[in-house]
Amino acid sequence: MSATHSGHLHLDDNVREDARRRLLSLKGHLEGVLKMLEKEDVYCVDVLKQLRAVEGAVDKVGDLILRSHLRHHVATAAERGDSDALVDELMEYLKYRR
Amino acid sequence: MSATHSGHLHLDDNVREDARRRLLSLKGHLEGVLKMLEKEDVYCVDVLKQLRAVEGAVDKVGDLILRSHLRHHVATAAERGDSDALVDELMEYLKYRR
Amino acid sequence: MSATHSGHLHLDDNVREDARRRLLSLKGHLEGVLKMLEKEDVYCVDVLKQLRAVEGAVDKVGDLILRSHLRHHVATAAERGDSDALVDELMEYLKYRR
Amino acid sequence: MSATHSGHLHLDDNVREDARRRLLSLKGHLEGVLKMLEKEDVYCVDVLKQLRAVEGAVDKVGDLILRSHLRHHVATAAERGDSDALVDELMEYLKYRR
Repeated sequence: MSATHSGHLHLDDNVREDARRRLLSLKGHLEGVLKMLEKEDVYCVDVLKQLRAVEGAVDKVGDLILRSHLRHHVATAAERGDSDALVDELMEYLKYRR
Repeated sequence: MSATHSGHLHLDDNVREDARRRLLSLKGHLEGVLKMLEKEDVYCVDVLKQLRAVEGAVDKVGDLILRSHLRHHVATAAERGDSDALVDELMEYLKYRR
Repeated sequence: MSATHSGHLHLDDNVREDARRRLLSLKGHLEGVLKMLEKEDVYCVDVLKQLRAVEGAVDKVGDLILRSHLRHHVATAAERGDSDALVDELMEYLKYRR
Repeated sequence: MSATHSGHLHLDDNVREDARRRLLSLKGHLEGVLKMLEKEDVYCVDVLKQLRAVEGAVDKVGDLILRSHLRHHVATAAERGDSDALVDELMEYLKYRR
């Protein structure tokens, strides 16, 4: 829980469950890459492509959560009066995105 | 194994072992995020930050493998005579990097 | 002007002026890279580093505008009643970010 | 010119000319965005999309140069005996790519 929003705002239950399911499947994907790395003749670029796919899946989960955060917390910030805190926090996250 | 380099080129053993160890630790990290997502009051941005950290760790493994591939396979491509194939393959990977 | 928000929402004047100044300076930077590319013995990686710096500067301008958009338009969306439209639009932009 | 490869390696002439033409057209694009920013009612997301397009164009020029560098300099590094220097330099560039 972040210091700034201790318990007031939390991730939507449906999104949380969706994210959990996707990360569970991602864990399976990661175990596949670990198996791949046990083979002595594995080719570098084949591993790189799998890692890229793993990152793509993490990105997708991140986007689900980000969309939910924008919808349920950022878009309502002016009503609650915590726009500055939420925007600062979000920009801190987004500036490392690329 | 990729169709183009069936068995000729393979990932350096030390790098493969290092990558495997790092991905095992990443699997632990991912399990931590899954635990986090079981809590009903988890805050969106806290999950986003953990996912960002996961991606950073995947990137680091990718960079280890990429460096090894450049050093052991791309830098020696002219000697083997497969520069075009290796560069095409690598650019295909790199163009989706950002 | 976007179809969805024809004239209702617009970029904050100070941010607009700041962005304009930064992009003017970026244009100067770009002209420097063009000069660099006139030299027959220019080294690839030196150009790549300059292009990376150009992208970093564009990113910084984008972040200024994004922060202003979040602060002035997204954080007030629930009050105006256009949260869905603004969040969809923003996610469409952000998903290509990395 | 980089300290490590003072004058030995340089960007292929055709790629250099292609990069120059593309950056000239990019300068035109940037001037369009500057015009856009003179309008008081410009919408944030419309500017953001233009900046994203500018970055996409810079990326494309970077990829042209990177491909040429891999093909003409990295793939021949073992023959010349400067693999370590070229790979270090390239990884330094690539690790900030995403």
